[in-house]
Amino acid sequence: MEPVKVGLLGLRTVGGCTVNVLRRNGDEIQRRAGRGIEVVAAAVRDLQRPRICPTDGMRLTEDALAVVRDPEIDVVVELVGGTGLALDLVQQAISSGKHVVTANKALIAEHGNELFALAREHGVMVAFEAAVAGGIPIIKAIREGLAGNSIEWIAGIINGTGNFILTEMRDQGRQFADVLSEAQRLGYAEADPTLDVGGGDAAHKLTILASIAFGIPLRFDQVYMEGITHITPQDVRHAERLGYSIKHLGIARRTDGGVQLRVHPTLIPARRLLANVDGVMNAVLVQGDAVGPTLYYGAGAGAEATASAVVADLVDVVRTLTTDPENRVPHLAFQADALHGDLAILPMAEVETAYYLRLQADDCPGVMAEVTQILGDRGISIEAIQQQEPEPGEVRVPIIFLTQRVRESSMDEAIASIEALGSIHGEVTRIRVETLS
Amino acid sequence: MEPVKVGLLGLRTVGGCTVNVLRRNGDEIQRRAGRGIEVVAAAVRDLQRPRICPTDGMRLTEDALAVVRDPEIDVVVELVGGTGLALDLVQQAISSGKHVVTANKALIAEHGNELFALAREHGVMVAFEAAVAGGIPIIKAIREGLAGNSIEWIAGIINGTGNFILTEMRDQGRQFADVLSEAQRLGYAEADPTLDVGGGDAAHKLTILASIAFGIPLRFDQVYMEGITHITPQDVRHAERLGYSIKHLGIARRTDGGVQLRVHPTLIPARRLLANVDGVMNAVLVQGDAVGPTLYYGAGAGAEATASAVVADLVDVVRTLTTDPENRVPHLAFQADALHGDLAILPMAEVETAYYLRLQADDCPGVMAEVTQILGDRGISIEAIQQQEPEPGEVRVPIIFLTQRVRESSMDEAIASIEALGSIHGEVTRIRVETLS
Repeated sequence: MEPVKVGLLGLRTVGGCTVNVLRRNGDEIQRRAGRGIEVVAAAVRDLQRPRICPTDGMRLTEDALAVVRDPEIDVVVELVGGTGLALDLVQQAISSGKHVVTANKALIAEHGNELFALAREHGVMVAFEAAVAGGIPIIKAIREGLAGNSIEWIAGIINGTGNFILTEMRDQGRQFADVLSEAQRLGYAEADPTLDVGGGDAAHKLTILASIAFGIPLRFDQVYMEGITHITPQDVRHAERLGYSIKHLGIARRTDGGVQLRVHPTLIPARRLLANVDGVMNAVLVQGDAVGPTLYYGAGAGAEATASAVVADLVDVVRTLTTDPENRVPHLAFQADALHGDLAILPMAEVETAYYLRLQADDCPGVMAEVTQILGDRGISIEAIQQQEPEPGEVRVPIIFLTQRVRESSMDEAIASIEALGSIHGEVTRIRVETLS
Repeated sequence: MEPVKVGLLGLRTVGGCTVNVLRRNGDEIQRRAGRGIEVVAAAVRDLQRPRICPTDGMRLTEDALAVVRDPEIDVVVELVGGTGLALDLVQQAISSGKHVVTANKALIAEHGNELFALAREHGVMVAFEAAVAGGIPIIKAIREGLAGNSIEWIAGIINGTGNFILTEMRDQGRQFADVLSEAQRLGYAEADPTLDVGGGDAAHKLTILASIAFGIPLRFDQVYMEGITHITPQDVRHAERLGYSIKHLGIARRTDGGVQLRVHPTLIPARRLLANVDGVMNAVLVQGDAVGPTLYYGAGAGAEATASAVVADLVDVVRTLTTDPENRVPHLAFQADALHGDLAILPMAEVETAYYLRLQADDCPGVMAEVTQILGDRGISIEAIQQQEPEPGEVRVPIIFLTQRVRESSMDEAIASIEALGSIHGEVTRIRVETLS
């Protein structure tokens, strides 16, 4: 049987590794897929640039549209990134009747709804396993492996750079900015790290996970996101003393009031597996009503791991080329006409969590009474209080509170009142706490 | 569209939960699958027995053959267990043109090769996600999610009962037999625990994992298996002091000499995620050449978790009912004519691992020299030696050795020589050590 013909848009690290994996494991992949998979063309930005993969038997061009429209090509792999040119090219590929495989989380999270509609119109697949958690087959696990479950919640470490920084802060007691520079030197973090440490990258991935878990359209604009830039080594240490780790989590939870979609630093019990996922690794914990908790762990980034997911998608596409489009696995796990578009996203003010609070207080007797009074007035129960020694060179005393679960809006009010106290200095640090049980 | 009609063979815990999950999540499952899934008949052993699920709209019969041959039924779910009656019923179902979903690891591991051949002949699917690691979608992850990889090795905690016992021995310092009785009381262990603690159950599952990972026929009869009955709380404690946990692992590894297939207690570094998988939970670590290590964790047993996998398989079957059989995902991940039937299974004597050895020695000066001489003569390098205090009431001294990697046959010789020494009493305890890196 003729090999399936693939065109790549982008031939740098992920593209190059995709070619390398397809060649290195070509025999095994064909033994699985039943057909060979051959990259016949690749669009590149600069024909002169050196490549990390062999390019024999492959047409290289600077004209991406030529690849997208090439009648010989069955599947287009989009590795351009971003939501500008990539969107245009993917639309053109779909309109030309090509199946699409993409690693582009921003594209899917922000434009997936339109792209999938267009793909249905043209009877083609758009596969995006590589868009979330790199090589971990988390899309497939939720979409197919847990298809019998009503998914209750998902909590994931889905940004490797952020996890690397938090791990270094914990293990080495280093400052955020210091570790970030190192991550940039090591190539883990982009020159502009905003998407990684600000939560945008995790929000893209969470958007996708929530859709396939709950059967809702992609709602990126409604994800609450908070980065890790304000986490200090002191917070990491205090959390550890209390038996917690701080992880930057994406959390999606179905509640009676609506779906929670939130990305923020989170204290989780140190004994949980998720708390022990360190460095650049990713892991996603999924709670299903029948299966209970399942966890999926692996490399969330890296060119070979991402290529692993791209090739898995290619094999899936090859296997369903001849399937009636109506019987393929739906893009978002649920049939397009069965997505619950009216399911509300819960505003962050209405989300209930427990909290870690860190205050800088004058070392005088009345402070504790004032603060506990404010918390009590808003119905906020205190789980633990720790008054720590002042940091070296500081005269003010850090006080740590762990609270029980309370609505975010009540905590907002309480924090505003606490910050207005004369005996409290600077902003109150607030980190949400989840037991993940 | 008409719902897909399912007949169950067995309606006790897993069967009842399958019905419950299909009803409880019926709306979501249909939104995913595009069609309803309806259990229309169930074969039971005793019609008078009370049921854990509703049975309205379902024909109950004590005649399993009537279900298997019922022309109305599209898919037969086999939950009989074992390799006697179940084999016969599954063969009859396939021959009657029914798709089959089964949770029966013994059936697949011991008879899968014939069953899949018969299924190909009749153009039907045999799905068995529930046969390995309960609700964890590990079959799907390896077969499809990692399809781009050359899988290098797999190491899994794939028997929940054994892991529960080892966890209790570690956390409570209890004896094996004592914890086993409790596991039986709690319903984790069968009245006859041989399959669980003797390694047979894990060997069934490992057989299946190795086939889909490496593209080889099922080779249950060639799995080396060793149970956990000889592990003592002392071994667990010594291992902990050395920075290891003892886990009962199924390990499949591709080497130049052949495929290793082995189930045995194993020391693994305590900081590994796998070392922190406790109680009845399961986890499988898979090393792929592109993706690196990925880990899959969840409930390895339990009726609802198993039903989760059964229903996921039903959804898969529904989605590919109209697919040309040649283009379906192959039963063992690789196309049937592309399985490497001639890939050798490495005899255990030729497997290389590191070892933990525990000796009971007389407390006299020459012993250590004699033992290290024997090890040195066989080229066995010592990584660590610990001479412990005698156990209370014992005059003999336990000596622990950690060795570097060596061929099993050399270790067999060394142990025989050590046991022949006058200063050594009883058998040498030998537990293999794996770094999983």
